[in-house]
Amino acid sequence: MSLVVRNIPRADTDTVEALAGFGVATTHEAQGRKGLMAAYMRPIYRPAAIAGPAVTCEVAPGDNWMIHVAVEQCRPGDVLVVAPTSPCEDGYFGDLLATSLKARGVRGLIIDAGVRDVATLTEMGFPVWSRAIFAQGTVKETLGNVNLPLVCAGALVTPGDVIVADDDGVCVVRRAEADAVVGKARQRVANEDEKRARFEAGELGLDIYGMREKLAAKGLRYVDEAPS
Amino acid sequence: MSLVVRNIPRADTDTVEALAGFGVATTHEAQGRKGLMAAYMRPIYRPAAIAGPAVTCEVAPGDNWMIHVAVEQCRPGDVLVVAPTSPCEDGYFGDLLATSLKARGVRGLIIDAGVRDVATLTEMGFPVWSRAIFAQGTVKETLGNVNLPLVCAGALVTPGDVIVADDDGVCVVRRAEADAVVGKARQRVANEDEKRARFEAGELGLDIYGMREKLAAKGLRYVDEAPS
Amino acid sequence: MSLVVRNIPRADTDTVEALAGFGVATTHEAQGRKGLMAAYMRPIYRPAAIAGPAVTCEVAPGDNWMIHVAVEQCRPGDVLVVAPTSPCEDGYFGDLLATSLKARGVRGLIIDAGVRDVATLTEMGFPVWSRAIFAQGTVKETLGNVNLPLVCAGALVTPGDVIVADDDGVCVVRRAEADAVVGKARQRVANEDEKRARFEAGELGLDIYGMREKLAAKGLRYVDEAPS
Amino acid sequence: MSLVVRNIPRADTDTVEALAGFGVATTHEAQGRKGLMAAYMRPIYRPAAIAGPAVTCEVAPGDNWMIHVAVEQCRPGDVLVVAPTSPCEDGYFGDLLATSLKARGVRGLIIDAGVRDVATLTEMGFPVWSRAIFAQGTVKETLGNVNLPLVCAGALVTPGDVIVADDDGVCVVRRAEADAVVGKARQRVANEDEKRARFEAGELGLDIYGMREKLAAKGLRYVDEAPS
Amino acid sequence: MSLVVRNIPRADTDTVEALAGFGVATTHEAQGRKGLMAAYMRPIYRPAAIAGPAVTCEVAPGDNWMIHVAVEQCRPGDVLVVAPTSPCEDGYFGDLLATSLKARGVRGLIIDAGVRDVATLTEMGFPVWSRAIFAQGTVKETLGNVNLPLVCAGALVTPGDVIVADDDGVCVVRRAEADAVVGKARQRVANEDEKRARFEAGELGLDIYGMREKLAAKGLRYVDEAPS
Amino acid sequence: MSLVVRNIPRADTDTVEALAGFGVATTHEAQGRKGLMAAYMRPIYRPAAIAGPAVTCEVAPGDNWMIHVAVEQCRPGDVLVVAPTSPCEDGYFGDLLATSLKARGVRGLIIDAGVRDVATLTEMGFPVWSRAIFAQGTVKETLGNVNLPLVCAGALVTPGDVIVADDDGVCVVRRAEADAVVGKARQRVANEDEKRARFEAGELGLDIYGMREKLAAKGLRYVDEAPS
Repeated sequence: MSLVVRNIPRADTDTVEALAGFGVATTHEAQGRKGLMAAYMRPIYRPAAIAGPAVTCEVAPGDNWMIHVAVEQCRPGDVLVVAPTSPCEDGYFGDLLATSLKARGVRGLIIDAGVRDVATLTEMGFPVWSRAIFAQGTVKETLGNVNLPLVCAGALVTPGDVIVADDDGVCVVRRAEADAVVGKARQRVANEDEKRARFEAGELGLDIYGMREKLAAKGLRYVDEAPS
Repeated sequence: MSLVVRNIPRADTDTVEALAGFGVATTHEAQGRKGLMAAYMRPIYRPAAIAGPAVTCEVAPGDNWMIHVAVEQCRPGDVLVVAPTSPCEDGYFGDLLATSLKARGVRGLIIDAGVRDVATLTEMGFPVWSRAIFAQGTVKETLGNVNLPLVCAGALVTPGDVIVADDDGVCVVRRAEADAVVGKARQRVANEDEKRARFEAGELGLDIYGMREKLAAKGLRYVDEAPS
Repeated sequence: MSLVVRNIPRADTDTVEALAGFGVATTHEAQGRKGLMAAYMRPIYRPAAIAGPAVTCEVAPGDNWMIHVAVEQCRPGDVLVVAPTSPCEDGYFGDLLATSLKARGVRGLIIDAGVRDVATLTEMGFPVWSRAIFAQGTVKETLGNVNLPLVCAGALVTPGDVIVADDDGVCVVRRAEADAVVGKARQRVANEDEKRARFEAGELGLDIYGMREKLAAKGLRYVDEAPS
Repeated sequence: MSLVVRNIPRADTDTVEALAGFGVATTHEAQGRKGLMAAYMRPIYRPAAIAGPAVTCEVAPGDNWMIHVAVEQCRPGDVLVVAPTSPCEDGYFGDLLATSLKARGVRGLIIDAGVRDVATLTEMGFPVWSRAIFAQGTVKETLGNVNLPLVCAGALVTPGDVIVADDDGVCVVRRAEADAVVGKARQRVANEDEKRARFEAGELGLDIYGMREKLAAKGLRYVDEAPS
Repeated sequence: MSLVVRNIPRADTDTVEALAGFGVATTHEAQGRKGLMAAYMRPIYRPAAIAGPAVTCEVAPGDNWMIHVAVEQCRPGDVLVVAPTSPCEDGYFGDLLATSLKARGVRGLIIDAGVRDVATLTEMGFPVWSRAIFAQGTVKETLGNVNLPLVCAGALVTPGDVIVADDDGVCVVRRAEADAVVGKARQRVANEDEKRARFEAGELGLDIYGMREKLAAKGLRYVDEAPS
Repeated sequence: MSLVVRNIPRADTDTVEALAGFGVATTHEAQGRKGLMAAYMRPIYRPAAIAGPAVTCEVAPGDNWMIHVAVEQCRPGDVLVVAPTSPCEDGYFGDLLATSLKARGVRGLIIDAGVRDVATLTEMGFPVWSRAIFAQGTVKETLGNVNLPLVCAGALVTPGDVIVADDDGVCVVRRAEADAVVGKARQRVANEDEKRARFEAGELGLDIYGMREKLAAKGLRYVDEAPS
């Protein structure tokens, strides 16, 4: 049996906007270095940066039927997250589906599979993070679940979690933790701004972070010539 | 013994131009979802879109000698298709060969191997779809065949077949089927234009394609809350 | 025990500048087709082209501590080369370290691992050649060596060797051979300029390089129709 | 902060034994084709077949410290599941840790990373399913969680879930669903036994499953000669 | 439209037996170093060695329906060759289908995808060469062609061609060329037997093949110490 | 110009034998966790374990000519190490070359490429560690160096270094460090023997290595139930 969950709780809009501003690397650090999708998830054009609550969609290999079902569950500001039940690089998604999602106000697509019509998607400004660009067509025969938790590119995504995606990749923030992550990200950014100024002024990380003593204690030794 | 076939039948120019206009995804669909090269075949710059009859060239690993032989067999509008006899990512092709092909009116290169001088090729506007970008030089010692059928990136290419390549990848159309494919592609585009307008207006694929009944029959069920 | 070698001999500035002008493919050919890093080493933006003496830095998987140590050893014009002791795609390097390196006049980073903050690095114009783009954070716990020889992406790098990097990838030139390589590269470029003009004029490589006889001797045969 | 959860609920022993008997393919089918780890997870020797409740262990790349922590949480019959926070093939586990686990009655190890001392592990009869065999040593510097849910090789594992592993790979069964899965697996096996007898007798799947009509309805056509 | 070609011409039994005896490496060499499938095609157990006429079967990703159709077209001594229309590692084939094929006298399976129940297949002695071992189940929804030419793991296979498979991989011999290949393989084996005896006696390839002069002419130089 | 260095200094026989006894994992640890070849280097049969001084051989992609040159430089007890100048999986080596090496007393082959005739090599008991098993034949056209330092599977090998290879992979020990490594390996083994006895008796690594305090200091916390 396949299920579509219609009403999922979504992260708060202000929280989502804040995370969009921080981007993937800062968000990932602020939440304790977790939630990243695999490095193979790349944007089809750059720069691209979005955030939004996840609508999740499970698809069979080579079968994009459930994406049509998932579109209806998307609301303005959402990010659609699609994962196949086994690895597949087929082109599940192209310009027609992008037109449909754009018409609904969806911010972008995260798909652990292939995408096509990327020249048109680039012109449309509809961002996609995918495992592959591949024109291979798909069928519409097999059901899957919409808005149940799934693993996408190695990361667990529960519907309503915040997806943050930019040129560095894709990060998932648990809905219940999103506010706390925003708080920590704010501190991190403030801290980094101060550090950046010192780096620009030529100060070294060794001194800014006070590393010299710990390095020496671990046994680091400086020599003026390589040992032969 | 290695052979060069001098006079290959080529697909009709009008047919080729029509396929160039449709692009890879539409052409692939119009011919029944076949003929795609592997997803790892990527353009060295984007956007890029060409079509043309294939001149085929088989090369030994790390040996680009036969490309020089193949150049002579190319005519204006052709696309050169190069495949090594075993997997290899060496840089078989650079700006000098591109200059030669451009001088002959060749539209681009499809190579299941590496290419180099990509900054210059980009400036020249000579498009290449390849498996890798790699500066590794090659030798000129071993023969291969020119204009015999070969398998390139998983797709069978018979000389004179139409190669269609764009940001989505590379598709091969059998020469004898090319006219029929154009016809079907035309219908598909007309059909998609109409669909696109409906998607833009906010209609759903579920309704446009009349999927709801079939989904229900297969057992799809809608709930308002995720089962615990 | 981990070592930092403070004073490494560096290739001469004029030599470095000359190699920067030649780029990767020409340099690689001029030195007898050696010294290339693996094809997976790609620039985070294009076009990008640099050269400079290598400062080498060995890091543990998922641990970027030694990069901070290496920064102090960098001088204006240097290129930092980072390799993990076992394969790792984590994001060892981001905009703060780039700010620090830029403040020291470092030309770019070569890292056989991941990099993050690529949108910012692109805006800053700080070029990086890496195996991956990945936001995954790293720790600071384990020592490594700075300015000892290491293998990076399959190529041996001795500190002070010249790194040449552009859109085609990354090439290493031994410091002691750098002057000779410049000389050979100059000859190669002159030779290629003359060839390019002939190719542009429509001459064939078969004739420019006098290949026809050797091809025939090896057994190449021309036919007017494919054998059935 | 890193946590070790000491008392996890475990699937019932009879259920576990039953699943061990069914093996991976049958268990996977019986639970609706879900729960498989990626195909790259391979046993270090064959044949090997185990099942047991999962103790989960998150490790940093190149750092096996938490495995020592996890060992203490293992009970007789358990299966230890280890996943790094980012992809890593280092040799986290060897014969000493295997000796320790064996002494505690642990049935085997599932690790989305590397393992070493495989000749000794084979002699000991301690089965491991891993992503790689690699001797690379690891450090003991960074904490992780023990017995929190994690994603291992693409599959979500909650502590106490049943791990089923054999020559076909690794499958995860939710603890709450394990009894139901056993029931369905039993039916499936009975059904397959009957089918096997018919296949052995030369009957065709086309007839056993009554496929001919559906195939014809979909448009399958039989011809006596390939179309030219 | 999908087609099943019922009566394909098959290579002669004696020819097939002869090729089985030569094995993959010799057959590949005897036919001019062509026809090999990709190196990722590995036997599920070793040693294994078969040959037989190919029955070809195209399948959709994650869909094994057409294998049931293909089974009916197999005759004693055949080898079934299965390729998906796009890359897929799912477990298309297990012990029930193997039982069916074995009952029909089929010698083995070549599949550019995944296989499961490998412990049972090993006990049954039914050899399979595959891209992956993976338990992932498949559906039965989409048609494909049986006994039309296809590309499997990079090699073109025309129905009735001879498949030769052993521990070194899989090689395809065109039906029309099979007799000639047998002849050349015989010569090669005779030649190798003589060479083997000389190698065993301590003679060097340099002398057996008379390479010294050609090496010197190309510029090989012997020194007694490495240049510094 | 290509060179063959005829007389290379070799590590002492007793040292080599000692390292053979320790195997890869222990040797790698004893020398400070360095010198490992990439994890993709696998033995063609298991178990297999050798050690010996390296004779190095650089080959062009798809060209095994220099292996014949290298054979002559091998002495009883040596291990031949072959690396292509760019990545290649072709079958450079088969039973005839193995016969030749065996006749000279060579212990085994390490090749960062493909090998063929593996069934015969297994029967002969001639061990090979390779990147691939592939029947693809090679040519004899291009020179390379014998007994100059090279990078093989990511590890620098200087002729005469000790190669240690077993089921865990391949490790390189610098000739000048080999004696010291033997000493440290001996200590390590003694230490591990003692540890093994304690593990067998059910003691935990946490206690044997005194880890509990350091873990607590880093912030590890034990709870009796997973936080919700």
